[in-house]
Order: sequence, then structure tokens, then C-alpha cells
Amino acid sequence: MKIRIGIVGYGNLGKGAALAVSANPDMELVAIFSRRKTGDSSLVLADEHKRTVPLCSVESAADMRGDIDVMLLCGGSASDLPEQGPYFASLFNTVDSYDTHAKIPEYMAAIDSVATKTTAIISTGWDPGLFSMMRVLFEASLPGNNSHTFWGKGFSQGHSDAVRRIDGVQYAAQYTIPIDSAVDAVRRGQNPAFTAKDKHLRECFVVAKPGSDKAKIEEAIKNMPNYFAGFNTSVNFIEDDEFMANHSEMPHGGMVLHSSKTGSNNQAMEFSLKLDSNPEFTGSILVAYARAAFRMSGEGLFGAKTVFDIPLSYLALKDRTSLIKELL
Amino acid sequence: MKIRIGIVGYGNLGKGAALAVSANPDMELVAIFSRRKTGDSSLVLADEHKRTVPLCSVESAADMRGDIDVMLLCGGSASDLPEQGPYFASLFNTVDSYDTHAKIPEYMAAIDSVATKTTAIISTGWDPGLFSMMRVLFEASLPGNNSHTFWGKGFSQGHSDAVRRIDGVQYAAQYTIPIDSAVDAVRRGQNPAFTAKDKHLRECFVVAKPGSDKAKIEEAIKNMPNYFAGFNTSVNFIEDDEFMANHSEMPHGGMVLHSSKTGSNNQAMEFSLKLDSNPEFTGSILVAYARAAFRMSGEGLFGAKTVFDIPLSYLALKDRTSLIKELL
Repeated sequence: MKIRIGIVGYGNLGKGAALAVSANPDMELVAIFSRRKTGDSSLVLADEHKRTVPLCSVESAADMRGDIDVMLLCGGSASDLPEQGPYFASLFNTVDSYDTHAKIPEYMAAIDSVATKTTAIISTGWDPGLFSMMRVLFEASLPGNNSHTFWGKGFSQGHSDAVRRIDGVQYAAQYTIPIDSAVDAVRRGQNPAFTAKDKHLRECFVVAKPGSDKAKIEEAIKNMPNYFAGFNTSVNFIEDDEFMANHSEMPHGGMVLHSSKTGSNNQAMEFSLKLDSNPEFTGSILVAYARAAFRMSGEGLFGAKTVFDIPLSYLALKDRTSLIKELL
Repeated sequence: MKIRIGIVGYGNLGKGAALAVSANPDMELVAIFSRRKTGDSSLVLADEHKRTVPLCSVESAADMRGDIDVMLLCGGSASDLPEQGPYFASLFNTVDSYDTHAKIPEYMAAIDSVATKTTAIISTGWDPGLFSMMRVLFEASLPGNNSHTFWGKGFSQGHSDAVRRIDGVQYAAQYTIPIDSAVDAVRRGQNPAFTAKDKHLRECFVVAKPGSDKAKIEEAIKNMPNYFAGFNTSVNFIEDDEFMANHSEMPHGGMVLHSSKTGSNNQAMEFSLKLDSNPEFTGSILVAYARAAFRMSGEGLFGAKTVFDIPLSYLALKDRTSLIKELL
């Protein structure tokens, strides 16, 4: 009996998640739900199996409670998830990648209050997600606030999505770029008191809709709270064809660095990712946590959960005995 | 109320663990137990506080069940832990760094059968330990057997300890050295079918006791099951003074590399450690898991546990709300 997966939202992340489901032999994709859909139809997946999967309206999901074990919420954090997260968590086990760091406690509380008979894992992916796990692991291993996270250079899905939702924007791509001098300072073990804004530039490429006010769009981007306000942000307006040619790939990556002393000895820990496709990797992490959500739900571990709450054995295809024998 | 820690075995690892306890404000070191001790005395710790701690015989530990929350077992895997692990787990919550990979299931079963009212976390440290966690996390994130672990260049405590226990050996240092061509092959994304033996050399520096048979010692090293048999091992006999001058530091490190494709895109994950002192870092990990053992025991989660079974929040000094707010 395979774990039956549903996907809500079939943008880049939804497509990445669908691909990841097909790479996990213990799972099957049952249906995809779209806000834009009214009637029912089907679509052919982009993976090697070219399977046909029902494409349904979001409204029809409630009728499929007996057919889906875990729902992957693949909408954006700016406007989709604040609404869809609590709604779906009241009906299904869910996994999402909610990434507005400053609002996570509020989002988590909203989910937790409705997830009384479901397991809802929030804010997975790689940051929040794997990078968050490393920050906790590194601080616990070598006490102190010495973890430094760098993102990029890479395409940021959440930030591009946020720009795309501004009035007058047709297409948008946002790249996060580590500031070299900041990386060097951390690598030299200086443990500087950097914030994200001291460590990264944000570079936007935007295609404006005909007749829109570019100055107003630029201002809306640069002042957007939580996403751009306070960052060194550049906004470049380009044409359709340049956007399609140069900004349709979604590479990303980054690293968490931590160094500390024990006695007089330096100890350094590092985690890094080099991703050719950010949405396909993020989708892969969502799918690993879908396995955890399914298992935890089966054990009655209901409510809103984070990556900090879940033992690694819950993510693995292999059983505990095999993990201990083969990987410990 | 601080978590009250005891340390069994005051070699390099025990000293590293004592230093780590002093770096964690929620813990205190209550006593150190030594096999070599008969009466009771005390010793002055090497940390900045220069505290005096009782030094007791291993036999006296059973009388201190009400005074110690977690016992850190800092003996070697070759002969100390197979005996001390089950003994102490029957009396105390324990954390150890048992590292004979091939015998972990057997060791775990022995511990689990006696840890009926205690929490016993086995095989922590960095490998087994953090590296094991990365292997599970990486496989779950990007399915497939594509994780490659490299150790070194560095001093191996477990292997040096094993050599030191051979008849006729006075002092011994074993260095594990990654084979460059193997690292290159993995970095090129070739996912070769390497075993540990294809990826590393083992280099030993040994001071023999006067009158001992060096050929016999070398043979005993090279044929030692689980530790050296099958590896490309070199054994160098040196004098006392050279050993003290060049082989008394214990640097180590290594990395876990994992690369895989999603669709046609390459995705690479990497975790690495650069440690000036292996025992002090390993001691730090034991101490983080001591916090987990204390909390799990308080929740009645008894029995033998591994790093795969424990949510990261159990390791952290900060409470869950702070972790979510500050590090997610």
C-alpha cells in the first residue's frame, strides 16, 4: 500500500514535488489541485513515466479525504499559504514550505489550532528546512550564536513570487548574491555580528506589463517588508524575450557555516547545497517530510510540526533496523 | 536545577566531555569515574573555571544513582564499552560513542534489553553520529545510495586506541587519509561503487615497548578485523620523543558528499567538519545528546536510542518556541 499524495498548486514547486513523488517507490501521486481550475480534467506528468494524473479544482479536494494520505501545499507564502495552510490542515495531513521567517510563529499557531486530527509539517524545504536543522544542530554541538547562513548565488522562488504579485508585474526573477567580503570574514573565523542584510545583495529582473508605472513597481519591491526592506536591492526592467532567454532556470544553493573554540582548539562545521533546480530540490524535501507526516499521523502525533520535532528515521524509506545496520 | 552529569573514563574523550559540560550553562559535572581508581580523591578540571571534581572508582558509581542524571561513557569501543555500556545503562541514563560499525546492532540489543527504566543513547559523536545523520538525511532528500563519506586527514581515536591495546605497544597514533583520486571521482559526480577501503589509507605510528616483537605487532594491526583488515595500512615504528613531538595533537575531520539528479538537474549536498581536536568535538556531541537523554528519560522514552530516533529540538539549549522564532 503506497502513501497517496495530493499536490495543491502546480507551479514550479508543484512540478518539482510531482517529479520527487515519482522518485520514491513507496508513494503515488493521486491528484493535483489548482486554484485556477474549475471543472475536472487531467494532465501528463513531466517525469520519465509520463503518467496521467487528475487535475482538480481546489474546491473539490474536501471530497477526497478518504483518497489522499498527505497533501503537499505548493503555493506561495505571500498569499496562498496563509489561507490554504489552515484550510487543508483541517482536512488532511499536510506539508508546506512556508518561508516568511518573521511570520512563522503566527502561521504555525493558525495551523496548530485546526490540525486536531491531522499532522501538519510546516516550513520544510531547505531554508526554512535543512538549513534551519543545521543551525540548531550546530548551536547544540558547539554552543554559541556563531552560525552564519549564506544564500546563493541563486534564484529565489519566494522572493520572485512576491515581486510577481505586485500590480503591473508580468514576470520577475530575484537573485540572492552573497557579499564576498562577508563570506571571507566568516571563513577567517571572525564571527562578525552580521544580519542577512550585511551578507547578501538582492538583484531583481522584472518584465513590466504594458502601461504600468515602473517607478512605482521599483518602490513597491524595495520597500516590501520581510522580503526586501533594508536590503541592498537592485531592480532591472527587461523585455519578455530577454527574460525567457536568461531567467527561466532556477539554480540556487548556499551554506551554513559555524565555527567555535573548545578550549584553545578551533572547530568548524559546514553544510552546503549546490542546486541546479531549486523547486525540484525543495519538492524533494517536501516529499521526504510527506513520509514523516504519514507515519506521525498513523501514530496519533497530530498538530503543527516543524523540522525540529521530527526524528530523521521518519524521513527514510528504509526501516529503522536497516538504517542502523547500513548508515549509522 | 542543572542537568547532573557523570563521566566514566577520563582519557582524551572524557577530558573533552568535561570541557564541553563547562560550556553548557544548563549542566554541571558531578563526578568522574575511572577504572584505574580504587579509593576516592578529586581532580582539577582543565577548563577556564579550574573546578575540582570528585574522582571515583567505577565500582562506586552504583551508589550515586540519585545524584547523576546522565552518565557519559567515554571508554573505548574495543573493550570498555561492550562491558560498561550494558552495566551503566541498567543503572543510569547514558550516552556513548560506540564506533565499531559492524557490531552496532549487537551492542544496541545488549543495551536495549537492560535499559528498561533508563534512556541510553548509543553511537553518538561525529561518525557514527553527525555523519550518520547526514547519510540518512541525504538519502531521504535525494533517493539513492549516492552518499560518500570521507574521513581525514586526521587522527583516529578509536583506531589508535585499538592499536594501543595490542600486546607490546606503548603508544600509537593512527591517521586516516582520503585517497585524492577517490575524492575527485565523487566530486565529478561519478557515484563510483567505493567502499571505505577504496577511499582511504590508514597510517600508524607506533612506539613499541622494550623487547617486544615488532613484526608481530605489525601483523596484529594489519589483520585486525573491523579496524584494519582489508585496508591499505602502513605501520611506522618510532621512538618515544618523536611520538611526543609530532603525534600528540588530535586533529580530524571529513565530509559526507551526496549528489543525485532530479529530472535532468544535478543536485549536490555536502557536510564537512574541520576539527583541531577530535576528542573535544566528540565530547561536545556527547554532551548535546546528554541533554536529549535527560529530556527523553523525563518523558518515559526508555531503551536504546540512536541519533536517528531523536528530534533536534531535544539537543538544543533553547526551548522550542525560541528555536522556531530564531532558527527556523
